[in-house]
Amino acid sequence: MKTFTEYLFFETKKKREYINITDEVEKVEDGMALVSAMHITAGIYVNDAESGLIQDIEEWLQKLAPEGPDYRHHRTGETNGDAHLKNLLIGHQVILPITKGKLDLGPWQQVYYAEFDGRRRKRVVVKVMGK
Amino acid sequence: MKTFTEYLFFETKKKREYINITDEVEKVEDGMALVSAMHITAGIYVNDAESGLIQDIEEWLQKLAPEGPDYRHHRTGETNGDAHLKNLLIGHQVILPITKGKLDLGPWQQVYYAEFDGRRRKRVVVKVMGK
Amino acid sequence: MKTFTEYLFFETKKKREYINITDEVEKVEDGMALVSAMHITAGIYVNDAESGLIQDIEEWLQKLAPEGPDYRHHRTGETNGDAHLKNLLIGHQVILPITKGKLDLGPWQQVYYAEFDGRRRKRVVVKVMGK
Repeated sequence: MKTFTEYLFFETKKKREYINITDEVEKVEDGMALVSAMHITAGIYVNDAESGLIQDIEEWLQKLAPEGPDYRHHRTGETNGDAHLKNLLIGHQVILPITKGKLDLGPWQQVYYAEFDGRRRKRVVVKVMGK
Repeated sequence: MKTFTEYLFFETKKKREYINITDEVEKVEDGMALVSAMHITAGIYVNDAESGLIQDIEEWLQKLAPEGPDYRHHRTGETNGDAHLKNLLIGHQVILPITKGKLDLGPWQQVYYAEFDGRRRKRVVVKVMGK
Repeated sequence: MKTFTEYLFFETKKKREYINITDEVEKVEDGMALVSAMHITAGIYVNDAESGLIQDIEEWLQKLAPEGPDYRHHRTGETNGDAHLKNLLIGHQVILPITKGKLDLGPWQQVYYAEFDGRRRKRVVVKVMGK
């Protein structure tokens, strides 16, 4: 069994941003790759690379986990309560199957890093296990 | 370490359908099975095989990610914006622990394929790693 | 390749409770740990160990998956329809990367067991694979 570990770094210009990282994932011949945000205000998801849909996702996340002043978490001085909930809603990690040296994804599946509290340096860990 | 890969195929009659696939997952003696929808409009989840609850889940998904005409994604000619959001809400994959040659699930845990845009051929990849 | 399996047990005093289990996870030198609730009314998530935020999460789950009498699931005699939906919303499992013998998490990432239908004995399986 082989394992590889790599780290991806992000520093977005906008508060919220959706970045396609499908091609960034290291591969083995056969196994799995864990892609996991190392922050509690960012997510990882798999879906379509279609700009209209990405705007739909952004609006939907704002509706179900809205920005606002009323989070108890803000008593700590933070202002990003909504970003924590968006992280929980979309999930902070995915596991990608790898077969014959390639990500074993469907034709429309793309891997996204979703930043919910950007303009600072952030990290994603990619851990690959396989043979 | 051993790895196995299998693909499950679905073509539902209804637009949305919930199919118990617990018995379809290949096993090793000890390890993990990744069960991952290869589509961006279908999900995989673990919950109860109780028909009332499945209807509750369907209603809940319709409430939080409703069908409707107003998705930007529909400018591409698609009509399934809601199915993408349902996929993000419920998740497109699970990892099942395998112990002593059996799925190491609780007594009520069943694995479901959730179709959100059916009536077409779709695929799920099952990747097993273990010994 | 090595695998380890352990089980964590919980019996909360309150119906809903959020318990930090970060230090409970067994480790290898390099690999992954699957932490998975063995119940359909409890979740596992990774987020902040900040008490205000935990109350925010509780309120948010109550808003998006409210307690109430109107679930079809309750025709079976159960009263915990909301707990099933909270489980689906927050997710029942996470996979933790392990590097150099430690959980490879960001500085604020803590692993939580989220009980949604407590006051009874419940279990979480931790399956570690690596070298």
